[in-house]
Amino acid sequence: MPPPSPPLVLLTCGDPAGIGPEVAALAWAATPDHDRARLRLVVDPGMIASVLADRRGLPALPVTEVTAADPRPSAPGELLVIRPDATTAAAVAPGAVSAAGGRQAAAAVQAALALIRDGAAQAMVTGPLHKQSLHAAGCDVPGHTELLARGCGLPDAAASMMLWLPGTGGRGGLGVVHATLHQSLRSALEDLTADRIVAAGRRLVPALQALLGRPPRVAVAALNPHGGEGGLFGDEESRLLAPAVARLASLDIDVTGPLPADSLFLRASRGEFDGIVALYHDQGHIPIKLLGMHRAVNVTLGLPLVRTSVAHGTAFDIVGTGRADPTSMVAAIAAAIRLVAAGWRG
Amino acid sequence: MPPPSPPLVLLTCGDPAGIGPEVAALAWAATPDHDRARLRLVVDPGMIASVLADRRGLPALPVTEVTAADPRPSAPGELLVIRPDATTAAAVAPGAVSAAGGRQAAAAVQAALALIRDGAAQAMVTGPLHKQSLHAAGCDVPGHTELLARGCGLPDAAASMMLWLPGTGGRGGLGVVHATLHQSLRSALEDLTADRIVAAGRRLVPALQALLGRPPRVAVAALNPHGGEGGLFGDEESRLLAPAVARLASLDIDVTGPLPADSLFLRASRGEFDGIVALYHDQGHIPIKLLGMHRAVNVTLGLPLVRTSVAHGTAFDIVGTGRADPTSMVAAIAAAIRLVAAGWRG
Repeated sequence: MPPPSPPLVLLTCGDPAGIGPEVAALAWAATPDHDRARLRLVVDPGMIASVLADRRGLPALPVTEVTAADPRPSAPGELLVIRPDATTAAAVAPGAVSAAGGRQAAAAVQAALALIRDGAAQAMVTGPLHKQSLHAAGCDVPGHTELLARGCGLPDAAASMMLWLPGTGGRGGLGVVHATLHQSLRSALEDLTADRIVAAGRRLVPALQALLGRPPRVAVAALNPHGGEGGLFGDEESRLLAPAVARLASLDIDVTGPLPADSLFLRASRGEFDGIVALYHDQGHIPIKLLGMHRAVNVTLGLPLVRTSVAHGTAFDIVGTGRADPTSMVAAIAAAIRLVAAGWRG
Repeated sequence: MPPPSPPLVLLTCGDPAGIGPEVAALAWAATPDHDRARLRLVVDPGMIASVLADRRGLPALPVTEVTAADPRPSAPGELLVIRPDATTAAAVAPGAVSAAGGRQAAAAVQAALALIRDGAAQAMVTGPLHKQSLHAAGCDVPGHTELLARGCGLPDAAASMMLWLPGTGGRGGLGVVHATLHQSLRSALEDLTADRIVAAGRRLVPALQALLGRPPRVAVAALNPHGGEGGLFGDEESRLLAPAVARLASLDIDVTGPLPADSLFLRASRGEFDGIVALYHDQGHIPIKLLGMHRAVNVTLGLPLVRTSVAHGTAFDIVGTGRADPTSMVAAIAAAIRLVAAGWRG
């Protein structure tokens, strides 16, 4: 059976103690995408109703509980809510780590995953988790991505992420993947292999193709200053990176590199590239934060499902102040819809 | 004898085959600083006259040769030129590497250095060199900084550089120094010590104090993702960086860190810090290029003289096209004058 049109796209709030419920409600009201997807917020209806009533600066949205089978379209003026798991609906104090917050966040993700795996929904767009709340809830994962990998019966390492900056470069946006990520810089250098770079590039390209509707122009960053200055500053460029670029090119990928990392991100920001394979965490994250993290979207790669996420955290310090910015959530909704429409499946 | 007021500030063109003569002439005509310094261009008068006549988009400036002893003020409408060394005045083809270009570039720097060391001039502002032209001229140095170190009878490593981004952060500008620079990332990790970080910070602070007229707020970047995530991603933060920050703080420096590098540059760009100690080349250069390399200034630290420089290269590809941008040279002139006025001496 083909998926229904428009697709059912599930939003989650992440940790209810964070700004997630606020950005979900604000994005619901602000997104232009209700005609391209039927949105549902997977959340306890009482929790989101009290957030809407209690926290500053939120739209006055009536909350209607529906089932996943309900075919009605969504609209900016009414929140359509799917209840995840009634046993987790305990009240949560805003702005603080709590086991209850972690449990609710995990339950929403698991409910959304079950609906997607059943074919009842086509994508999920997740709000920010708090790692310590998850841990307090006995959920021993670093974040959403690992939670989803395990939910799919896959090892944590099966999943990775692309950071997507819609608009950057002026030709659709810029996607960045990392060949190494959450590890010391020293161990990243040890673990960097041509295989890892090729694998990162191979995951990046189909996701960008789906988002852009055309073959992306990809670059691999160099590791050393000035791209190694012809071997004077390290040999990884010739030993690992050039062979990895050649392997990617042999797969009919439009790929260049290794290119000096300092000018590469500037060139990409001016529209020369659609995608970058960064080699270590800060090489990608320093420029992404400067280019506009507030509108960045996290796209999960490597799992058999469409999942996008806000790229920001729970921001406990601004919960309820009216300062939460839904830009990333709105962009994450748009990206998820585009990925579904292009037939991309992770 | 106190230095004359206003100070004599020497400009050089760098490699005459590059855009250096163009940015020098454009900056001469555009700088608002003729009332705060007596500017002189150290260059063969015939060379600069032919550049002014032949290359597109340059102001029609008459060229007047003067001696260093000539006390007259400078003005935007007339180039006052000090001839460096008549034996190096061979014609140079624009846009190409040449021994003659390298020789002229080096001769101008050496003439400027001699005038400063004699007390006849107070600062130099240099245009871009081309490393290969220098090498072709038998001048075996990577660039200006080493040429000047040797001219001062000091080892190459005595000199280092601060990249100064005037205006960034809105409270004067942002200065960045590197604890390691032109070496492989792998060797940078080996060579990174608390001593190096402390030394970089100690050089950074007086230069920023002179440019800003107040004690700078300095941050030391972390090495690992998320600042090491409490030891989970590497131990350099606790083993090297925190002790280095403590030592800098004990010298009455307003210093914070180690701070996660990805958000640090964003925070600095919003005005939270005046200076950053970066740990390796790309950690500083990726954000600097995104924040606006075209207006960056290179300030030499560690030598007993005031020398600033454009932060761009010779840009052989745009020589004579009228596209050379003097912003960096104008900013370098302003920075040199401010450093002299504050009594900073390298």
